[in-house]
Amino acid sequence: MENKNLNALNKFEIEDIIKNAIKEDLGAYGDITSKYIFNQDDFSESCIVCKEKEGAVLCGIDVAKFIFEEIDAKVKFIKLKNDGDYLSMGEKICEIKGSTLSILKSERVSLNFIQHLSGIATITGKFAEISSKYGVKITETRKTIPNLRILEKYAVRCGGGYNHRFGLFDGILIKDNHIAAAEGVSKAISMLRNKIPHTLKIEVEVKTQGELLEAIESKADIIMLDNMGFEEMKKSVRIIREKLNEQCKIEASGNVRLDILEEICKTGVDLISSGAITNSAKAVDFSLELEG
Amino acid sequence: MENKNLNALNKFEIEDIIKNAIKEDLGAYGDITSKYIFNQDDFSESCIVCKEKEGAVLCGIDVAKFIFEEIDAKVKFIKLKNDGDYLSMGEKICEIKGSTLSILKSERVSLNFIQHLSGIATITGKFAEISSKYGVKITETRKTIPNLRILEKYAVRCGGGYNHRFGLFDGILIKDNHIAAAEGVSKAISMLRNKIPHTLKIEVEVKTQGELLEAIESKADIIMLDNMGFEEMKKSVRIIREKLNEQCKIEASGNVRLDILEEICKTGVDLISSGAITNSAKAVDFSLELEG
Amino acid sequence: MENKNLNALNKFEIEDIIKNAIKEDLGAYGDITSKYIFNQDDFSESCIVCKEKEGAVLCGIDVAKFIFEEIDAKVKFIKLKNDGDYLSMGEKICEIKGSTLSILKSERVSLNFIQHLSGIATITGKFAEISSKYGVKITETRKTIPNLRILEKYAVRCGGGYNHRFGLFDGILIKDNHIAAAEGVSKAISMLRNKIPHTLKIEVEVKTQGELLEAIESKADIIMLDNMGFEEMKKSVRIIREKLNEQCKIEASGNVRLDILEEICKTGVDLISSGAITNSAKAVDFSLELEG
Amino acid sequence: MENKNLNALNKFEIEDIIKNAIKEDLGAYGDITSKYIFNQDDFSESCIVCKEKEGAVLCGIDVAKFIFEEIDAKVKFIKLKNDGDYLSMGEKICEIKGSTLSILKSERVSLNFIQHLSGIATITGKFAEISSKYGVKITETRKTIPNLRILEKYAVRCGGGYNHRFGLFDGILIKDNHIAAAEGVSKAISMLRNKIPHTLKIEVEVKTQGELLEAIESKADIIMLDNMGFEEMKKSVRIIREKLNEQCKIEASGNVRLDILEEICKTGVDLISSGAITNSAKAVDFSLELEG
Amino acid sequence: MENKNLNALNKFEIEDIIKNAIKEDLGAYGDITSKYIFNQDDFSESCIVCKEKEGAVLCGIDVAKFIFEEIDAKVKFIKLKNDGDYLSMGEKICEIKGSTLSILKSERVSLNFIQHLSGIATITGKFAEISSKYGVKITETRKTIPNLRILEKYAVRCGGGYNHRFGLFDGILIKDNHIAAAEGVSKAISMLRNKIPHTLKIEVEVKTQGELLEAIESKADIIMLDNMGFEEMKKSVRIIREKLNEQCKIEASGNVRLDILEEICKTGVDLISSGAITNSAKAVDFSLELEG
Amino acid sequence: MENKNLNALNKFEIEDIIKNAIKEDLGAYGDITSKYIFNQDDFSESCIVCKEKEGAVLCGIDVAKFIFEEIDAKVKFIKLKNDGDYLSMGEKICEIKGSTLSILKSERVSLNFIQHLSGIATITGKFAEISSKYGVKITETRKTIPNLRILEKYAVRCGGGYNHRFGLFDGILIKDNHIAAAEGVSKAISMLRNKIPHTLKIEVEVKTQGELLEAIESKADIIMLDNMGFEEMKKSVRIIREKLNEQCKIEASGNVRLDILEEICKTGVDLISSGAITNSAKAVDFSLELEG
Repeated sequence: MENKNLNALNKFEIEDIIKNAIKEDLGAYGDITSKYIFNQDDFSESCIVCKEKEGAVLCGIDVAKFIFEEIDAKVKFIKLKNDGDYLSMGEKICEIKGSTLSILKSERVSLNFIQHLSGIATITGKFAEISSKYGVKITETRKTIPNLRILEKYAVRCGGGYNHRFGLFDGILIKDNHIAAAEGVSKAISMLRNKIPHTLKIEVEVKTQGELLEAIESKADIIMLDNMGFEEMKKSVRIIREKLNEQCKIEASGNVRLDILEEICKTGVDLISSGAITNSAKAVDFSLELEG
Repeated sequence: MENKNLNALNKFEIEDIIKNAIKEDLGAYGDITSKYIFNQDDFSESCIVCKEKEGAVLCGIDVAKFIFEEIDAKVKFIKLKNDGDYLSMGEKICEIKGSTLSILKSERVSLNFIQHLSGIATITGKFAEISSKYGVKITETRKTIPNLRILEKYAVRCGGGYNHRFGLFDGILIKDNHIAAAEGVSKAISMLRNKIPHTLKIEVEVKTQGELLEAIESKADIIMLDNMGFEEMKKSVRIIREKLNEQCKIEASGNVRLDILEEICKTGVDLISSGAITNSAKAVDFSLELEG
Repeated sequence: MENKNLNALNKFEIEDIIKNAIKEDLGAYGDITSKYIFNQDDFSESCIVCKEKEGAVLCGIDVAKFIFEEIDAKVKFIKLKNDGDYLSMGEKICEIKGSTLSILKSERVSLNFIQHLSGIATITGKFAEISSKYGVKITETRKTIPNLRILEKYAVRCGGGYNHRFGLFDGILIKDNHIAAAEGVSKAISMLRNKIPHTLKIEVEVKTQGELLEAIESKADIIMLDNMGFEEMKKSVRIIREKLNEQCKIEASGNVRLDILEEICKTGVDLISSGAITNSAKAVDFSLELEG
Repeated sequence: MENKNLNALNKFEIEDIIKNAIKEDLGAYGDITSKYIFNQDDFSESCIVCKEKEGAVLCGIDVAKFIFEEIDAKVKFIKLKNDGDYLSMGEKICEIKGSTLSILKSERVSLNFIQHLSGIATITGKFAEISSKYGVKITETRKTIPNLRILEKYAVRCGGGYNHRFGLFDGILIKDNHIAAAEGVSKAISMLRNKIPHTLKIEVEVKTQGELLEAIESKADIIMLDNMGFEEMKKSVRIIREKLNEQCKIEASGNVRLDILEEICKTGVDLISSGAITNSAKAVDFSLELEG
Repeated sequence: MENKNLNALNKFEIEDIIKNAIKEDLGAYGDITSKYIFNQDDFSESCIVCKEKEGAVLCGIDVAKFIFEEIDAKVKFIKLKNDGDYLSMGEKICEIKGSTLSILKSERVSLNFIQHLSGIATITGKFAEISSKYGVKITETRKTIPNLRILEKYAVRCGGGYNHRFGLFDGILIKDNHIAAAEGVSKAISMLRNKIPHTLKIEVEVKTQGELLEAIESKADIIMLDNMGFEEMKKSVRIIREKLNEQCKIEASGNVRLDILEEICKTGVDLISSGAITNSAKAVDFSLELEG
Repeated sequence: MENKNLNALNKFEIEDIIKNAIKEDLGAYGDITSKYIFNQDDFSESCIVCKEKEGAVLCGIDVAKFIFEEIDAKVKFIKLKNDGDYLSMGEKICEIKGSTLSILKSERVSLNFIQHLSGIATITGKFAEISSKYGVKITETRKTIPNLRILEKYAVRCGGGYNHRFGLFDGILIKDNHIAAAEGVSKAISMLRNKIPHTLKIEVEVKTQGELLEAIESKADIIMLDNMGFEEMKKSVRIIREKLNEQCKIEASGNVRLDILEEICKTGVDLISSGAITNSAKAVDFSLELEG
C-alpha cells in the first residue's frame, strides 16, 4: 500500500513549491508585525484544528511539518493525524511547540496548503465513497491549479481517488483534434502504435459509435466515452465488453457531478475522470490555535 | 486607472510561475501524442470560448498570450477581450493562429490559468456588485493558493475588488496573539508605532468593545471588526466614527458570504475582506476550439 | 512522423541545460583570449564539418543553433543537415556567419553537444540497422549521463531507436528486488495492477522459467528476459507467444553487444534495450572551420 | 596532497548537478513501481560492487554518498573505498543500510555518476601509467560532456591526470584563428601580454616551425605542438629547450591515443592533452546488490 | 524590540544571496592554493577582529556564521558580539574553530559581507547619534547596492536608523513626475486614495509652497520636503503642524550630509532620508587571524 | 583592444544579477504609485545626466540599456556615451523614449548600477592616471561587494585598471598562512608547482627579506610585497630585478591610498592592488530627467 507521506513524492520538486510559497508570504521584511512584539525566545504551544462542520479528509500534514521545520529547525511538530485520515469538526491534527515568532511566520503558509489539499481530498472522498461501491475508480484530469499538480494528484490519492496521466508527456490520449487530423481513429492509433515508448498504453476519446467501433477494431488499450448520455454509455460499454477482453479499460468523462455520479457508475465503466475535484475544490477550514 | 494587463504586474515573477506551469505539463517528452500525428508545419486557426452559462468576468488573457507566444514565437494571438471584461456564454475571448502542435501544447496550461483566475474575478465581481452600491470595498486576504498570490490579487482587482496587504512584510496587522503577548491593544500599537517603516498604517483586529476602545484611543489607522454580529458591528462603526475622523478605515472580516454581504455593508464599514474569493473560487469553464 | 528538432522537445528544460553549459565554459570573464585580439565587429564566415572517417548520424544541430543565437542574436546559423541525417566524412552540417568573437565563444559548447549526441545517434544507428531487418526495436535504458537524459533519449530516436520509460515515474518495471519482496511475480503484479495510473503498462523482468510462467499467468503487458542465453530466450519467446496475444511485448536485456545483436534478434523478441548506447558512446569528431 | 573528496570541490555547484540528476529520474511521481510494493519502513542492507573484469579506478563515491543521504537522511552509507583507489572485479566500494524504498530511489542516479566518472578516471589512469614513467603529465581539454565539467576534471585528477584551464575564462590559449587575425604569433602574444590578469600564463598553439620560432622569441609561457609528427615534435622540443629555460612548458595535442602515447612521451614534451579521456570514456560497470 | 539576527529576516532570500557570493569566490575549482598545502583534517583556531581605528558598529555576524557553517557544518563559530554592537579597534567579534581548509574558504566571502554591512551600520550610527538628540529618525532610500537591499536595510536598523519603503511595491511616494502628469498634488493624491491597498500611507514630495498647501489640503499622510533650504523647511514644518495633526509625518530629503545634519534636525522634521548611507558607505576594516 | 560593453562579459551571469535587482525593486505589486497615475500608453522622452561636479568615468551604460529594454522591449535607449568615457558635470549619457510607466519602473534600478559602477571606474581612473605615468598597473583584489564581482572587475577595467585573479579558483596566491603551514616559502611553492593547472602562475606574498629570498630562489612567477615601507619595497624590487628576469612580476599591496600612490609607484613595482577601489567607492551622482 502506498505510504501517504511526503517521501512518497519527489522531495526536490516539492521543496521548491514550498520555499516559493514561504517567500511569497514573508517577502523582503518577514513578519513585520510580530517581530516588534515577540522576542526570539518567546515560546508557545499550539495546534492546528479542523473547523469544518461536516468533517473532511486530511491532506497536507507533511507539507505543514516541512514548512514549520524549514522556517525553524528547533520547532517541534507532532503529527496526530496522517494524510488520508477522516477528520471530524474540532479534531486536532498536530501539536506545534517552539518559538512564537517562528510559529506565526509558518501559520498562514501551512494552512493555505492544508486547506487547499484537504479540499481536494475531501471532495474526491465523496466521489470515491459512491463509486467504490460499484468498483469504479475516480481520477483527476490535467485541469489542475498551475504549479501544484504534483501535490493535487497526491491529494486525489489521499481522498481515495486514482491518478490519470501526469501531463502530456507520460500518457497517450488521442482526442478529437488528433482524430480529425489523422482522418479517423484507426489511423491515429496506427500512427502512434509503433512510435511511442512501449511502456505506455493508448487511450482514445470517442464521441460516436463509429469512432467507438474503430477504437475497438484497433485494440485501443483504453477507451474514453466523452460526454455521452447514460444510455449511449451503457450501450458502448456492452459493445466493448463483447469485443475486447477485460484488459481494455473504459473511462467516462465530461461534466461529472456528484448528483449523477451513481448513474454513471451504473453504466459499467471502469473509471470516471473529473476536472472539478482539482480545479474547483472548496477549501477546508482549519485554524492554528496558540495556547500561550 | 490601473491597466488591466500583465505590464501592471512584475513580469519577472510571473514569468517564473508561467514557465513552471509549462514544465509541469510538458515534462520530459513534451506532447507525446500530438508529435506523432501532426507535422511541425500543420497550421490551425483556433479560439478560446467562454462556456459558462451564467457568464463570467475574464482574468488571465495576457497570461494565456504569454504562454502561447513563449511556446512558439510565431503563433499569432489576437485578444478580443481584456481582463476585467464581462463575458456571456459562448463569447470568444481570443483568436490563435499558428502551428497546430504549438497550439495543442499551450492549450491546457493556458486554460488552467484562465479558468482559475476568471473564477476569482467572477466571484469577486458578484461581491463587488453588491458592496459597491454601499460604497464598500471588497478585499482578499492572505488565504490564497500557494505560489499564485500575485496573480490571484490581480484577479481580485479585475473583478472589481481591492487588495489588502500582500504578505506579512508589507502591512501591519495586530491580531489576537499579538494583543495577548503585548498585554493589550494600546501596548501592542505603541510597540510598533515607532519602529515600523513610516509608510505603513497600523491595522488592529478587535473582538470586543474593550479592545475597540483601546484601538480608538491609540489612534489605530485601520480597525478590523472580527467575526462580530451585525448589531455589534453597527455599534462599533458608530463609536469609531464619533471618536476618529474619516482617515480611520473600518474593515469587517470573518465568514463573509454572498447571502449576508448586503447586511454587512449596511453596518457602515469601509471594507470587507474574504478568504473564500481566492481559496474557494469555482473554475470558470472555457474551451479552446480548433477550426482546422 | 516525429519532427527531428528542438520543438519536439520541452524547450524550457533544454534551455536550462544549454545555458548551464554556456556558463560552464564562459565562467566569469568570458573568452579572455579572443576579446583582446578581435573587435566586436570583426566578421567571419564559418562552418561545422564532420571529421569522422566512417561517417556518423547527426544529432544536436538545433542545440548548436540555439547556442549560437543565444550568445549573439545577430549571428546567422544556416542548417545544411537535420538531426537524424547520415553524414559522410567532410560533410558540412551548417554555415555560421557573424561576429568572430561570438562564433568563437559558441564553438566549443556547441561541438561538445553535437559530438556527444551524434555519438549516441551513430551507435544507435548501427544497432538499429541490424535489428530493423528483424522488425526488432532498439531502446535505451536509464543508464544515461546525468542531466542529459532528455537529449540522450532524443539522440536515440535520431539514430533510429525507440524510447523506454523516461525515469522511475512514468513506467512500471518490476525487478528482482520487487519480486523477492512481494514473494513472487504474480503477487507483485497484483499489488500494482489496481494502484497505478491506468495509462501505464506493467513490465516485469524475469530470470527463470518459473518467473516467466507467473508473468504470463498474470498477464504482464511486457516481459523482459533478463540476461538469458539465446536458447532460453528463444524458448521463452515461444512460450509467451503461445499463451498471450501479440499485445504482450517481449524485451531482451543484459550485455547487449553489436557482435551478438543479430543472434538476439533471431530469438523473436520485440525489443532490445542497451545501456551502452547512451553511457558509453564514443564522441563523433566535428570541427568548426573559420573562413576569415 | 589534494584530498580526493567532495570537499575539495565547490559543494554548491555540485549540489545543483546532483539535485538535477535526481529530479530527472524521479520526475513527478517518484518510484512508481516500488512505492506500491515496499513499505516506508522496509529495511535493507546493500552494497555497490565493481563488475569490471579488468578492474577500474574509482571516482564518484562521495557523489553517491551525497545522493543516498540527500534522498533519505536516515540512510547509512559506509565508504569502503575512496576516489582514486584501484578496484578489482567484484570489490565492494560501500555498504548502504536503510529504507529499501530510499535505496532503490537512489540506485540508478548514483550508479550513473559512478560509472561515468570511474570511466574517465580509469582511462586517464591507463594513460598516466605510461606517461608518468617519462615524467609527462596527462591533461584533459575542454572537450567534456556538457554540465559535468567540474566533476569530469575531478575524475581526471582521481585517475592520476592533471587539469588544463577550466574554460575560456581562466587560461589563455592562442589558436590558429587568433594567430591569423593578429597576423602572427608575436603580434598575438603582444596584444595579450599587457591586458590579461597577471596571474595567467600565455599558451600558444603552433603548427609550423615559423610559428614555433615566433612563440619562442615572444617568450610564450607554454607552447602547444598541435598535431605534429613524432620527428617534428622531437625537433621542436629540442629547439625550445635550447632557447628558453625550463619555465616554458611544452604540450602535445591532437589525436592522442593509448597505442602511440609512449612514442609521444619520448619526444620530451611536458604535457599531453587528450579530449577522448573525457568525451569518449567507456562507462565502468557497477551494480547495487540488495541483501534483503 | 527587534531581534538583531538573521531570523528577523527572510532566511530564504538571504540564503540565495549568500550562496551566490560563495559560488562567486570558489568558482569551479574551489581554493586551488590551499587544497594542495593543507589536509582536510588540519585544524585551526581563528578569530575575526575589528581593525578600524575609530571603531565601528557591527553588522553581518550572523551572515558570517551562516557562511562558515554552510561551507563546513563541523566548523564551530562562537559569536562574541552581536549585530548592532559598538566595536573598538582590535575587538574580537567571534572565534572560529575547525578545518583550516574550510576556514580559509570562508574567510574572504564572510569579510566582504561584514565590511560592507558594518560600513553602512557605522555611518548610519553617526547620523543617528546626532538626529536622535532631536527625536528625528534617519532612514535609507532606494539608493542601494543592487541585490543587497534586504541586508543593507537591516544594516541601517543595526546602526540605529529606520526603514523607508522597501521598493516601488510597498509604499506610495508621489514625486514631481507624478504631480506633473496628474496636474497637481491634489489630483495625484485623489487618483491614488481609493485604489491602493488601504494598509499603505500616501507620501508626497513637495518642492514649493504651492505644492505644500495642496498636500496639506489633501491630507497627505507623509510630506517630503525635497531639497529645501533650512528656512523654507522650518516654515513648511510650521505650516504643516498648524493645519494637520501629528499623524502627518514630515520627511527631509536631498543631499543630506553629516555636517549639516544637526541644522536639518532643528527644522522640526520627523525623518531625514539619505541615499549616501547605503550607496557610499566606506567598508569597515576587519581581518581573520589564524592562530595555528 | 577590449570592447567596453556587455558582450565582453558573460551575458548569462549578468542577466541573473540584473533580473534579481529588478525583482528587488518591483516586488509583488510593481510600481504601485505610477500605475494609478499614468496610462500604459503615456509616452515620455527622458535622459540620464551626470550630476557630479568633479566629473566621472562612466560604467554601466549597457547594464542600464539592458534593464530598460528588459522591462519594456518597446523602449528606445540611445547611448550617447560608452563605458570608459570621461564625463563632465551635466553631460547626458543616453536618451530614453517610450512608455512613461516603463521608464519610471526602470529608473532607480538602472541608476543604482550606474552610480555604483561609475564610482569604481572613477576612483580607479584617479589611481590609474598617476600610476600609468610610471608604467605601473592598478588592480583590484577580492575585496568586492558580494554578488557584483563580475561587474566590479569590469568597472575597474573601464577606469583604466587591470584585473587580478577572479576568485580562489583561477589564480594561485600563497599567503602567510600557507607559508606557515608549509614551513617556508620554498616548500609551499614546491607543493604547488607540480599540481596546479600548468596555465596558472604562482604568486607569493612576502613580508620579510627571508621570505623574499626564498621566493626568488623558488622562481615565483609573481612576488607580492605585503605592507612594506617605501625603502624596504625599493630594496626588494632591486634584489628581484637582479636575480630574476623581467618575467617575474612585482606587486605592492596593503593600505594603498591616493596620497601615497606616487611614492609606491617610484619603488619600481609592476602592479599595485587596492581593495578600496571596489569596496569603498563613493557613488557617482546621476539623475534621470523626464522631458514630458
